[in-house]
Amino acid sequence: MKGALLYEGKAKQVFKANGEAGKLVLSYKNDATAFNGEKKSVFPGKGRLNNEIASHIFSILQGKGVETHFIERLNETEQLVQQTEIIPLEVVVRNVAAGSITKRLGIEERMCFESPIVELFYKDDALGDPFINDEHALFLTNVTRTDLKEIKTKALEINRHLQTIFQAIRILLVDFKLEFGRLACGSIVLADEISPDTCRLWDVETFEKLDKDVFRHGTGDLLTVYQEILNRLEEQK
Amino acid sequence: MKGALLYEGKAKQVFKANGEAGKLVLSYKNDATAFNGEKKSVFPGKGRLNNEIASHIFSILQGKGVETHFIERLNETEQLVQQTEIIPLEVVVRNVAAGSITKRLGIEERMCFESPIVELFYKDDALGDPFINDEHALFLTNVTRTDLKEIKTKALEINRHLQTIFQAIRILLVDFKLEFGRLACGSIVLADEISPDTCRLWDVETFEKLDKDVFRHGTGDLLTVYQEILNRLEEQK
Ligand SMILES: Nc1ncnc2c1ncn2[C@@H]1O[C@H](COP(=O)(O)OP(=O)(O)O)[C@@H](O)[C@H]1O
Ligand SMILES: Nc1ncnc2c1ncn2[C@@H]1O[C@H](COP(=O)(O)OP(=O)(O)O)[C@@H](O)[C@H]1O
Ligand SMILES: [Mg+2]
Ligand SMILES: [Mg+2]
Repeated sequence: MKGALLYEGKAKQVFKANGEAGKLVLSYKNDATAFNGEKKSVFPGKGRLNNEIASHIFSILQGKGVETHFIERLNETEQLVQQTEIIPLEVVVRNVAAGSITKRLGIEERMCFESPIVELFYKDDALGDPFINDEHALFLTNVTRTDLKEIKTKALEINRHLQTIFQAIRILLVDFKLEFGRLACGSIVLADEISPDTCRLWDVETFEKLDKDVFRHGTGDLLTVYQEILNRLEEQK
Repeated sequence: MKGALLYEGKAKQVFKANGEAGKLVLSYKNDATAFNGEKKSVFPGKGRLNNEIASHIFSILQGKGVETHFIERLNETEQLVQQTEIIPLEVVVRNVAAGSITKRLGIEERMCFESPIVELFYKDDALGDPFINDEHALFLTNVTRTDLKEIKTKALEINRHLQTIFQAIRILLVDFKLEFGRLACGSIVLADEISPDTCRLWDVETFEKLDKDVFRHGTGDLLTVYQEILNRLEEQK
């Protein structure tokens, strides 16, 4: 099924799907990177955990009517997805203040935003994925104002679904990063991954961090907390 | 006429205007600061130049129907203005790429934007005036979505007038920073200053920098270039 390697990113490899026009195989790697690639490590089993978590979440979102690239999980570390032209924007939704925003805006960690905050970052490793505004996005990428509005509306809708999913497993969805892509027909769908690599997930009672921050700050074992997220999601099935 | 000192900023002092309710005296200082106050110097005569340049420009804008805080120039270094409640946003308009945006977004200096780019910065010295988006502005300040729309429309309208003013004196208006304030009646007007401290102004033929960048980067004499701007504006009268 796996054809030519199209692209190797920090967390996944992207292959053509043989004999399946317009489809890709995403292969989740065991690598973890942080601070724009400055900190690196390998965690055997991470690829499987993220593939299972992402597949689980994308299936639920599809079921709720959110259009995504996801077709099916193929095996432990791989999934089949629709090929898209990725829009080079990282769309971040924040429900609770944590990470970069606390320092930039002088906000206490754990502060809850009354309405979720949406931020755009320009997906460009060489520039360090800079924070941008709508006008920069219009200048730097091929999105229109209408696309941006649609992308933000979708991000907030996905936020509501994810909050429901995580609330049910006693997890506070602090913030997360989405990527959107354009299908051949032109429509914009959710692509890339949703996993503890791309979300901040805190236990609702203990505020324990169950996401990549344990690797970023060396405060816990990545595999243990990712497994905890997967276990809680699977208990719900 | 000058009453109690209300506030002393990096470039101006703000006094109550005695016996004139709702009015302030802005007194332009000779101080120059850059890089969020890290670099400092005093230029005897700078206050007069900026007061004259700003008074000149604000009069023209008023004449073109732009609502501003400006009432009149009182003397060499002082002007009478309407007291406003300043909205803590620095509204930057960019016609040509220069300064921070070139590094952040990897754009060549001198690149012309097809449509001017508007950026918001949160006016907070302790945080280093961070770049923000609309949602941050709604969260951090008391502006509404409608206010933001009005502020941006006004900024672009002011840009068109300023481009006309500077074109006539063979100056390329690269970018500039505005501040808006609310009058007691609630309406939002242009406040603060427009001067070579707050604009990037390049000679259209030689691209010579005739603004605070000569002080920031030690590439020229501040008083000489500010005087050049004032001379060119006065020739036009
Ligand atoms: N459906 C899709 N179509 C095309 N590219 C995709 C799709 N989903 C994800 N991608 C891209 O796959 C690449 C590999 O992912 P990843 O390893 O996370 O990369 P990165 O190092 O850029 O974060 C990313 O560039 C991502 O945008
Ligand atoms: N019309 C006005 N009403 C009230 N405050 C004003 C008005 N115009 C300018 N100001 C404020 O005057 C202060 C002094 O100016 P400045 O020395 O440039 O200060 P800063 O160091 O904050 O840049 C600034 O806080 C500015 O916002
Ligand atoms: Mg990625
Ligand atoms: Mg100022």
